[in-house]
Formats: sequence, structure tokens, C-alpha cells
Amino acid sequence: MALRVILCLSCDDQPGLVARVTAQLFQEGLNIEESHQFGDAESGQFFMRIKLAAQKKLSLAALRRNFQPIAARFGMRAHFSDADEKMRVAILVSKWDHCLMDLLHRQRTGRLPMQVRLIVSNHANARPLARQAGIAFHHIPIAPASADAKTKASSKRKAEARLQRLLAKERIQLVVLARYMQILSAEFVAAWEGRIINIHHSFLPSFKGAAPYRQAFARGVKMIGATAHYVTAALDEGPIIAQDVVPVRHDMNVQTMTQMGWEIEQRVLARALGWHLDRRILLNNGKTIVFS
Amino acid sequence: MALRVILCLSCDDQPGLVARVTAQLFQEGLNIEESHQFGDAESGQFFMRIKLAAQKKLSLAALRRNFQPIAARFGMRAHFSDADEKMRVAILVSKWDHCLMDLLHRQRTGRLPMQVRLIVSNHANARPLARQAGIAFHHIPIAPASADAKTKASSKRKAEARLQRLLAKERIQLVVLARYMQILSAEFVAAWEGRIINIHHSFLPSFKGAAPYRQAFARGVKMIGATAHYVTAALDEGPIIAQDVVPVRHDMNVQTMTQMGWEIEQRVLARALGWHLDRRILLNNGKTIVFS
Amino acid sequence: MALRVILCLSCDDQPGLVARVTAQLFQEGLNIEESHQFGDAESGQFFMRIKLAAQKKLSLAALRRNFQPIAARFGMRAHFSDADEKMRVAILVSKWDHCLMDLLHRQRTGRLPMQVRLIVSNHANARPLARQAGIAFHHIPIAPASADAKTKASSKRKAEARLQRLLAKERIQLVVLARYMQILSAEFVAAWEGRIINIHHSFLPSFKGAAPYRQAFARGVKMIGATAHYVTAALDEGPIIAQDVVPVRHDMNVQTMTQMGWEIEQRVLARALGWHLDRRILLNNGKTIVFS
Amino acid sequence: MALRVILCLSCDDQPGLVARVTAQLFQEGLNIEESHQFGDAESGQFFMRIKLAAQKKLSLAALRRNFQPIAARFGMRAHFSDADEKMRVAILVSKWDHCLMDLLHRQRTGRLPMQVRLIVSNHANARPLARQAGIAFHHIPIAPASADAKTKASSKRKAEARLQRLLAKERIQLVVLARYMQILSAEFVAAWEGRIINIHHSFLPSFKGAAPYRQAFARGVKMIGATAHYVTAALDEGPIIAQDVVPVRHDMNVQTMTQMGWEIEQRVLARALGWHLDRRILLNNGKTIVFS
Repeated sequence: MALRVILCLSCDDQPGLVARVTAQLFQEGLNIEESHQFGDAESGQFFMRIKLAAQKKLSLAALRRNFQPIAARFGMRAHFSDADEKMRVAILVSKWDHCLMDLLHRQRTGRLPMQVRLIVSNHANARPLARQAGIAFHHIPIAPASADAKTKASSKRKAEARLQRLLAKERIQLVVLARYMQILSAEFVAAWEGRIINIHHSFLPSFKGAAPYRQAFARGVKMIGATAHYVTAALDEGPIIAQDVVPVRHDMNVQTMTQMGWEIEQRVLARALGWHLDRRILLNNGKTIVFS
Repeated sequence: MALRVILCLSCDDQPGLVARVTAQLFQEGLNIEESHQFGDAESGQFFMRIKLAAQKKLSLAALRRNFQPIAARFGMRAHFSDADEKMRVAILVSKWDHCLMDLLHRQRTGRLPMQVRLIVSNHANARPLARQAGIAFHHIPIAPASADAKTKASSKRKAEARLQRLLAKERIQLVVLARYMQILSAEFVAAWEGRIINIHHSFLPSFKGAAPYRQAFARGVKMIGATAHYVTAALDEGPIIAQDVVPVRHDMNVQTMTQMGWEIEQRVLARALGWHLDRRILLNNGKTIVFS
Repeated sequence: MALRVILCLSCDDQPGLVARVTAQLFQEGLNIEESHQFGDAESGQFFMRIKLAAQKKLSLAALRRNFQPIAARFGMRAHFSDADEKMRVAILVSKWDHCLMDLLHRQRTGRLPMQVRLIVSNHANARPLARQAGIAFHHIPIAPASADAKTKASSKRKAEARLQRLLAKERIQLVVLARYMQILSAEFVAAWEGRIINIHHSFLPSFKGAAPYRQAFARGVKMIGATAHYVTAALDEGPIIAQDVVPVRHDMNVQTMTQMGWEIEQRVLARALGWHLDRRILLNNGKTIVFS
Repeated sequence: MALRVILCLSCDDQPGLVARVTAQLFQEGLNIEESHQFGDAESGQFFMRIKLAAQKKLSLAALRRNFQPIAARFGMRAHFSDADEKMRVAILVSKWDHCLMDLLHRQRTGRLPMQVRLIVSNHANARPLARQAGIAFHHIPIAPASADAKTKASSKRKAEARLQRLLAKERIQLVVLARYMQILSAEFVAAWEGRIINIHHSFLPSFKGAAPYRQAFARGVKMIGATAHYVTAALDEGPIIAQDVVPVRHDMNVQTMTQMGWEIEQRVLARALGWHLDRRILLNNGKTIVFS
């Protein structure tokens, strides 16, 4: 099969960019299958994603090398990747496994082209799901909220160190927090910037923090939602990738809202993940550009 | 035409309520055309809305009098109204008239059964719309933000006093803030509790206060929305009646979002207003029950 | 636990109905927890669903017996059921198992209160899903489309007979066609009237029959959808229970639409099923009343 | 103000297209502000829309002339237009004026950048709306359905001839059928191919023809919708531009559905019109490509 390539790039906007880039790609024998671009009037930055099919035998390494002079001339951040190489993914989950189940089914049926290499949880209950899918499961328990501060801190530190080793060993490229209810350390988050996707069960920025469905019920909102975002050190503040909502009524209690919310969480997380796997998301100063 | 009546009631939940109420209504010769009820498990309160058609000649006054013993026995707040009597409404508007225009068209085409008796604005530009609809228009200017504090306070006080007189004179039953950008005094709001509906151009509780579309753009959310709510002294904190959202993309700027938002504002405000006019909304401790 | 009961009834609309019914229920010591009613102006029929909680010890049999005189007097079809008794369900599925998986997860997590007693398929691939859920799986193959007419007819007849025996043996109350691609005989459908729910992968009445996503793509529609309906002898013509849609774009091919459609199918089927299990659906002359 | 240009083109897909086109545009001193492209795998056709800003003084005529050799070489249909020139539009309307009103408000507030030059109706009731907007109104009555066939045919012929003259005189570029309930002749439609947009009050292909809300009510669907499409000789079969839906319930009658539908009609028509005015729609063999 001929090589298919995705090129994502960004730089200061300037005349002749697209002409120069497309001329080079044509010269390499690459056909454009899909192309998106965006010039941000605020920041003056230009963003582009091109999907290419090689007409002749080509290597990614050669492509990158040959593109280097153009990237240098325009001051581009340019990233080539193999469109058919499935990203290596770790899924972190706590007690609620509805998002995990949904992601695994999407992987199995080809709707999410990824290799889930690891499932990690601070609970044990997702083990059967992992086993059925033939994926390694690691139960890394964390000291309960009732433990003393020192015990908790130590437990967290050890758990995270173990997690880091697992991610490194499996050469993980993306970490998905599929309702993982533990807060990751600032160091961990910094090391994985732009490569951790979380699903938050509210329509951010409404109802940050704990128990958002309970907050939504108390406030009496008429819609509840979910938000998929990249994780940053500031809790629930990272760049938003996808959001959706569902209407609620006065006769729905917290439990009903929670169960209704599960569907939105599944849907929103899967949508965000699909875009990331297909390299459709570029970061733009605390916000995302989604070339969908 | 035979009398059609809407009865809204609330009280502590207790056995036999519905049987007793419906027996009484039957005895009065009233047929139930529509009935909704809700028992709030949290507060132990019971809420009901019944729409009735009289089979024989009846007066509202007699109905109320005859119902009094039951209301007393169960400790009910009960309110009978004539389903075919159109509520007397005042619309307050500032510079942006899209919601006003929409409400007037809905009045004209029978989609909102109300009598708009007054249109009041701190700007003059809605005058032609009011004239075309044959509705009294009052331009009550308010000192600009650039004025000194004393001037502004005095200007506001006078404007509100004039507004109060107009509302009283026209025996207004409902005040609609159709993008009215002035904050009403706590006294005014208290006097009109549960009878002022505002449209806020965000998905509350996100983006309270000024320039919500600008806030939404800055945060990079993927949906924008609007919220219709009853006005209370705490800004943007009143009981929510209706909400809706629309998806946005990275390539939409504040102006585009603003224009997209107008449609949601129109839709959400009209929906909330329709429910209020049809007495479908009951207040429940900072939240609304909407029997739609 | 005290008995909780759902009463569904319908009859010619007439004065005093609700008063008489609620008086009787009160007399039995039943509290109304939820109540919905609808008078169809077209047909003159009245429909009601009441959810009740017994304050004292009661049996369903006694309730039914005591209600008999009222039902007779008003010419009612009245049906009492135990709100906490989980319906016995059979799921039929062909090759695509996304709806099956979703239903099983909802059963496991309590979002769909049912007992799935049987999974039947003309393919073998759902067996592992059934096994993991601990549910009996029956593979009933059917002669392929390429077989001669006689073989196919005989194969179908035998398969249906076997299915009937399984349903009878397990005292199944509801049959769910979770993307079951075989047409059931008119006799079978008649025997199970109002008790077979199908998910059709289009926004009915658009795109009846085979390959609806292909039809939708060819027509160039901008939304695709799914429809859950009761099965009748006329293919894709039964009473509609629930529908939903998702927007599509010119750059989505049939395969993409199909995969996007899966989510809507899951969601719409689950919604319809939830309403049926909770006895929220009444049939009204080829249409459904959904007291949701 | 510097020239801003929109280029829309289509041709057989072939290597080097984008590089060649963008090189030429760069050479002309044009900056790319927005760019969309689509290769249709089915038909092998390539489609592109580019929005450009001139850095130096340029004329559309020169641009077209200089682009001619490239267009010829690749067999392109290429169309340059001035992005800031507002299209000249005629709106045709019958009795229901909600879409007309909405379009006029959008024109006035800058949400739809167009020049409405003509409003034509077979009824007189839209005259005040037209007058208030300062737009020429022409009442062209048509013989009623009760007239004899010959009278009707003659009436239609004359009305259409008069309409054609008006459109020609005002150099109209786009005809909008904003709930215009008369069928246009095949000749008229052919002459205006791709330049007549209609709003149909159903979710096509469901409920073609007359009284779609009545049909929807009779079938018992759970959502109603609207479809904006280009008009072709085959009634309700033209290329679909935009669609949307709204949920309905069993307790809504035809009248309620009709009134709810008005909002969707307004929204969907405005969306389609906005795309057309901004040259975002390309025709692709009975379907539309919408570069939104």
C-alpha cells in the first residue's frame, strides 16, 4: 500500500505559504486528499492540515528531510505522520466504565483507529472488560480520601511513578482519562502536554470540580453536558476539544441526570479522541483548532 | 364561548390530594383538558397545573370561592386564571431589537397569545417597529456610563420611577427584558418577583455578567447558548426557565458568534414567554417547574 | 418493600373520569407518584398512566379485582403492573452488534431495568458478548439470499418456529430487534403486536427498506437518523416511538454515515426500550402516546 | 478598500492542481484568507473555494483573463466574484410571511449581506413589511384553484412572464421562495437553474408535496423538519442545501406543529441563503457541496 501522510503545520501568516508548501508536496509526488487551513486574525498565526497520498515509493524520513528548508524559511512547526499508523493509547479509568466500554467497542469495530495498549485503573472492576478485549489491565490502587495526608501523597506519588513506567514501556502516544477521577500531578501533566484527553461531565466552564451533575441539579439548569479537553495543570481549564448537551426537566433527579449524562460523555469523548487520532486538532494558545 | 380555566396549585404533598381536587372540579362541571403534576422528593412539595373547560355557565369568582375550603384544608397556594384572557405585557429593550421583532411577529401571528401594551427602551431605535405594530413606545434615556456616579444614580432612579408608573397605568402583568441592558434596582425586582423574564446571552451559569459572547470566544468553548430566567436581585442567578445552545467552531469570531447567538436568544426567550403566558411555570425554591 | 404499581388505561373521553379513578385509588391506599393523561381531540379517546405507591399491604390481583367495576362502567382498557418487576426480554440481532452491546451495558449498569433472557441471532458473532453477560445465546441460521426460494421459505419457517418455542419457554414479554435484518412473518408479528420494537436506521418515513444509509447518501440529505417503532405486518410502517438525527456533510461517504448512524441507533433504541419497560407508551390507532 | 475575491472552481481531479492554482494566485498578489477543497471519490471531480485578498490594485476582469490559461489546461469551470458585492435578490412569498420577515431583519442587521430588490407575492398581505423595509412590492395574483383549468394556466403563464420581466429589469441574481406556494414552470426553473432556493416545510424526502405538517401528524413522527434546496423541474427533488428538525410530541396537533415548524423554516432558509450569498455552495450532480 502506498504511503499516506498527514502534515500539520503552523507559523506566522505570510504571503505565498500555501503555494510554496503545495508546490513542494507536488514535487515529492504527493497528491492532496484533504486540506484545511486557518489564519487566526487575532494572533496572526496560520495553521494547516493536509492529507496526502504518495504516488510513488516514499519514506516519512525523506519527506521530513526534504521539507526542512521550507519549514526553516517560514519558521514553521511542521509535523508529518503516517496516516495509517494507529496511535498507541492508554486508557485510565476509575469506577465508572461506560466510556471505557464505548471506546473498546469503537476500537473493535474500526470506528476509532487506535491501539489501546494499556488500561489502568485505581479500581479493579474494569478488569473483565479489559480481558475480553485482550488488553493489559493494571490495577493501581490509591489511598482513599479518608487516609492521612502523608499516606495519600505518598500513595499518589508511587501510583504515578508506576503509571509513567507503564506508559514509557508501551511507548504510549496518548493518554485518555475515561472518567478517571484522580488528579494528576503538575509534573505529569507538563510531561504529557497536548497528549492527555479528559472527559469532564459538565458543560465547561459551568460546574468545574467535583460532582457536576449534583451542581447542575442544584442550580436548576435545563441542559446538562460534557466537555472533552486537553489536560493542563489548572483543573478543568485546558483547551476544549468537543462539547455537547442534552435537555433535562424538573422531574429528573441527580441519578437520572447522571445516567443521561453518560451517553453524552461517551459521545463527546469518542468524538474528541477520533479527531486527535486523525491529527485534526492543533493547539492555539489555550484553544483548539479542530479541522473536522 | 364557554369558560376555560387554568388552575395552578402547590402545597405539601399528602394522600388524597388529587382525588379531592378533581372531585371538586368535576362537581363544578369542569372537564379536565390537560393535567400535570409533580411531587418534589427533595422538598416534599406537590405542584399541579390543570386546564379545564366549563360545561355550564360559570364565573372565575365563584370557582375561587368554592375552591377556598379545599385550599385551606390542604394549605394550598391555588391560582385560577382565565385561559383565554391574554396577559398584559411590557417589553423592555435596549439597542438590539432582534428579540423584540421576533416577539412582535409571534404576537401578530398568534404564536404568543399576549397583549403587548408597552415597549420601553433607553434607546430610540425601536420606535419604528413599535409604531408598525401599533404599540405605545416610550423612550426613557439613561445617563451614559461615562457620566458621574451621582448623575447616573439619579438618572436611573427617575427612569425606573417613570417605568413603574407606565406599568401601573397599563396594568402590566409581565415584564419581558428582550435584551434590555440596564440593571433594575433590587426594589423593582422584588416588587415584580416571578413576573420579569430576562434573556441572558450565555449558557448560564457560564459567562455571567457583561459581554458573554466575548467571554465564550476567549475561553474557546465549542457551543454558545442563551438562557431565559426570572429576574432576581442576584444578577444572572434567577430561576432558569429555558436554555438552548448552538455549536461553534474555531474559525468563528466574536461577531459571528454574536449573530449566531441572536437566533438562540429569540428562540429561548419565545419559548420561556410562551410557557409563562400559558401558566406552565411554577416556582420551586430557586428553580422552575415547567409543565410543558 | 411496599408495592409500586403502574396503571395504564384508555377509554372514550367523558366527564368525571379522573375524579372517579383517583378516588378509587385513594380509597385503596395508593399514593400518586406520577400521573400523565391525554385526551385525543381527533379520536375522542382518553389515555392515562399513573404510577402509584401502596401505603399498606396490597396485591396486584386485589387491585385489579376492585378496579373492575370502574373499568366496566367507563368501558376502559385498564392494565395494572408491578413497577418493580423487570420485564423479560429477548434480543434478536444479526451481524452488527453495537445496539446489543449498548443494551447489555445499560442492563448491567441499571439504566435499563429488564431481564434479558435470550439473545438470538442468525449469525454466530454475538456469542462472546452474550457469554460475558451470562445470557443464553441461540444461533438460528437462515438460508442465504442466494438459496432457492423453497429452501429459503422452509428455512425461515423453521427458524421462526424455533424462535417461538424459545420465547414461550422463557415467558418473554418483549422482543427487541437490535439490528435484526430478517423479516418476520405476518403471523409472528400479529401474535406479538405491540411487543416487538425495531430500530430502523433511517429517519422514517424517509428511506424505508434496505440500505437506508446508502439511499441517504445518494439523495444528498444533510441529516441522517434512526427510528424505533413497533413492528407491524407492513414493513417500516409501525407506530413510531422515538427518532433522532445527526447532521452529515458532503465529504462523508456511506461508510462514515453508517458508523455515525450507529450511535443514533443505539441512543434511539435505548430510549424507546426504556419507555416501553416503564410502561410509558400507549398505542393510539397507528401512533404512539409517550408519557415521558 | 482592497479587492476581496472568491474563486470557486471544479474539474477532474488531477495531481498538481492546488500547487498550480495557488502559485498563480500568489503571483497575482493575492493572499489566501480561506480555502476549502473536496475531491469526490465517486465522480473523480475536484471542487475548490478560495477567498482571497488583493495586496495591490487589481481588477476582477484582469484576474479572470490571467487565470484563463490555467482553467483551460485543467478543464476547469472557474468563477471569480467580488466578495464585497452584495447579490441582487428577489423574494417570492405567498400568504405566510414569517420567512420574509426573518430575511428582511437579517438583511437590515447585516446578518445576510444581500440587496433585496423585489418582493413578489400572489397575495397582498406582505405589502406593509415590504414598505417598512423600503423594498418594491409587486402583487401578482394567480387564478384560484377553483378556477377552470384554462383560466388557471393562462393566469400562471401571465404571472410568470411578468415575474420574468421584473427579474430581468432588476438584474436579479438569486430568487428565494420564502414559502411561495405556486409551482413554477419547467422553463422558468431551467432558466434559473442553481439560482432558485426554496424552503420546503418537511424533512425531505419525507412528506413531499402538499400539507407536509398534516402528513407528519398523520404518520405520528416524533420530529418535524424543514429543507432548503435548489429548485429543479422535479418537485421537491432538487439538490438539498440545509436541513434541520425539532422534536414533537403526541399532544401536539397540526396547528402546533405548523407554528413550531415556522422557526425551523426561518432558520434553515436563512442558513442556506447565507451560504449561497457567500458562494459556499457548489453543485455536484444532484447534490450540494457546502464549504461552510
